[in-house]
Amino acid sequence: MKYGARNAITAKVKSVKKGDVMSLVKYEITTPAEMASVLTTESCEDLGLKEGDTVKLVIKAIHVLPVKE
Amino acid sequence: MKYGARNAITAKVKSVKKGDVMSLVKYEITTPAEMASVLTTESCEDLGLKEGDTVKLVIKAIHVLPVKE
Amino acid sequence: MKYGARNAITAKVKSVKKGDVMSLVKYEITTPAEMASVLTTESCEDLGLKEGDTVKLVIKAIHVLPVKE
Amino acid sequence: MKYGARNAITAKVKSVKKGDVMSLVKYEITTPAEMASVLTTESCEDLGLKEGDTVKLVIKAIHVLPVKE
Amino acid sequence: MKYGARNAITAKVKSVKKGDVMSLVKYEITTPAEMASVLTTESCEDLGLKEGDTVKLVIKAIHVLPVKE
Amino acid sequence: MKYGARNAITAKVKSVKKGDVMSLVKYEITTPAEMASVLTTESCEDLGLKEGDTVKLVIKAIHVLPVKE
Repeated sequence: MKYGARNAITAKVKSVKKGDVMSLVKYEITTPAEMASVLTTESCEDLGLKEGDTVKLVIKAIHVLPVKE
Repeated sequence: MKYGARNAITAKVKSVKKGDVMSLVKYEITTPAEMASVLTTESCEDLGLKEGDTVKLVIKAIHVLPVKE
Repeated sequence: MKYGARNAITAKVKSVKKGDVMSLVKYEITTPAEMASVLTTESCEDLGLKEGDTVKLVIKAIHVLPVKE
Repeated sequence: MKYGARNAITAKVKSVKKGDVMSLVKYEITTPAEMASVLTTESCEDLGLKEGDTVKLVIKAIHVLPVKE
Repeated sequence: MKYGARNAITAKVKSVKKGDVMSLVKYEITTPAEMASVLTTESCEDLGLKEGDTVKLVIKAIHVLPVKE
Repeated sequence: MKYGARNAITAKVKSVKKGDVMSLVKYEITTPAEMASVLTTESCEDLGLKEGDTVKLVIKAIHVLPVKE
């Protein structure tokens, strides 16, 4: 089972809130994780990203896809 | 400093690969994290998501936004 | 009329479910279609994608933009 | 194997073009397919979407996730 | 010509930078514009968004779709 | 405060509509703005984008992230 995505994080469901059309699900990350981001090289240079920097990784919940294997 | 996004994870940069237009950056998650996803209620029910379930959270790298505070 | 997107598929509306803020619309693909995806070269190599392979193309409904010409 | 996404279309790889950081892959849809979109109820009403309407479904290639099962 | 999206802003191309697979295009907004965002109600309440507030609207370039009518 | 995104537009909140899970917020752009898009070089060439062209920039509301600094 392989995904064409850099991020596939194991997580445990903590809560499910069902709405009329959309639902919000919350998770706990249960194992150490690595992540990857793609951004324009211009943005990368504006941020001056380099090894060892600490950043916040902001992700809208709509972009997180839960999969049951 | 507040974001209109459910996910804002502290991470440390491990590597930066710069391309002509796009760059790929990798991170280590340095603190325990929680995440949230929004999906259609239909998908939620098809998956049968409930508290305690283990899932993979798949996120394309392009949807991860690094921010320096 | 031209879009800056690789995928523009002709489809017929089958159902519309209106919610308070978001709505879910379903379609039938009425003509043979081609699609394209962009992913990191790393993910592409991890998947080992090559001509003739069969894959599932997974797309969250939120990323599908209906247009009436 | 279940995805928290409304769209999971079987497709065959036609071509792969690898770039320095990102790659572009093209597919043929090999089976009849249904699709779903989520949009704001406001946009849905502005479009006047109803059963039987013909639309174009526009999807940026970056939002298409290939998966090998 | 109608889009199932809340934002359709008239803009003038200022520069085009073509890469091997992806290109970066810059624009000037030539007419006063309104925009809309959808976020979880939780994020909306955490931000405490109300009429008259000033915010930054952050959008990754990959999510901007140019269309020629 | 720096974002790994090409677009960060100052805006004023005009209205907030809260739904059960998702909310829709509208804004006025209060200062002249520039924007950027990333698309495949193929789409860029199909559109024939060049300096001075007028286009519509279409953005689904879900991709707009409000931030309070």
